[in-house]
Amino acid sequence: MKWQELKAEPCSIAKTLSIIGERWTVLILRECFRGVTRFDKFEARLGMPRALLSERLKSLVAEGVLERIPDPEHGRRSLYQLTEMGQELRPVLLTMMAWGDKHLQAAAPPKVVEHLSCGHTITPTLTCPDCQEEITSQNIVVRNP
Amino acid sequence: MKWQELKAEPCSIAKTLSIIGERWTVLILRECFRGVTRFDKFEARLGMPRALLSERLKSLVAEGVLERIPDPEHGRRSLYQLTEMGQELRPVLLTMMAWGDKHLQAAAPPKVVEHLSCGHTITPTLTCPDCQEEITSQNIVVRNP
Repeated sequence: MKWQELKAEPCSIAKTLSIIGERWTVLILRECFRGVTRFDKFEARLGMPRALLSERLKSLVAEGVLERIPDPEHGRRSLYQLTEMGQELRPVLLTMMAWGDKHLQAAAPPKVVEHLSCGHTITPTLTCPDCQEEITSQNIVVRNP
Repeated sequence: MKWQELKAEPCSIAKTLSIIGERWTVLILRECFRGVTRFDKFEARLGMPRALLSERLKSLVAEGVLERIPDPEHGRRSLYQLTEMGQELRPVLLTMMAWGDKHLQAAAPPKVVEHLSCGHTITPTLTCPDCQEEITSQNIVVRNP
């Protein structure tokens, strides 16, 4: 397999990586979840090469993760915002954050997650929707249907 | 910021990407979760360049995600297996899989997740450990502590 052929793989992880697996893409999405919509702001916050940012945004729009709408304040510019499909990538970023919080921070994590519904500061946890047990590598098996 | 400086960022997502954000790394981890331990088998299953595979495995060992142990069947070779820290990356891959299953599969997903504890075929779901509600982009806020 070639990296460029990921999308054609049957595996859903490979297909997902065909959209979010390039350098910077997850960080662009992080900024989207923080409310960033303008090209210049993505650029200022990430400090990534302008041409690459442009390419990544274009690709995320083409894949349906972001949508491009006219910027009401700057007629000829665009805003980039998450589609519903894009919003649903949040769990991927939250599980990355939780893992980094646990394993890669020398001190307390710089950000916390507040669950607005119950008001608690939480670590979002992957669970079984049927029995509510926390999912670990040991209590599941991924198999053919 | 430069991509190579990700690890020095305060953000836990950036730090996590410094370990799993390069091309192929998540697919190598997927193979680890499928039980692959030998270099040749990673190579055969992923079809990625040998030098790159070697570099990625070395890096994952250096970061503490994999450990390298002597192969009992081939004295001079090594086996690569997930450390506990590595096992705990499973939720990241499972949320990627769930998203791909939902958004990128034209037909039924090729794999299912069976929760061994309750025996059900499930979609692992990110929830609040306090109130068990499913976490979405809308019901949380990520903020300073």
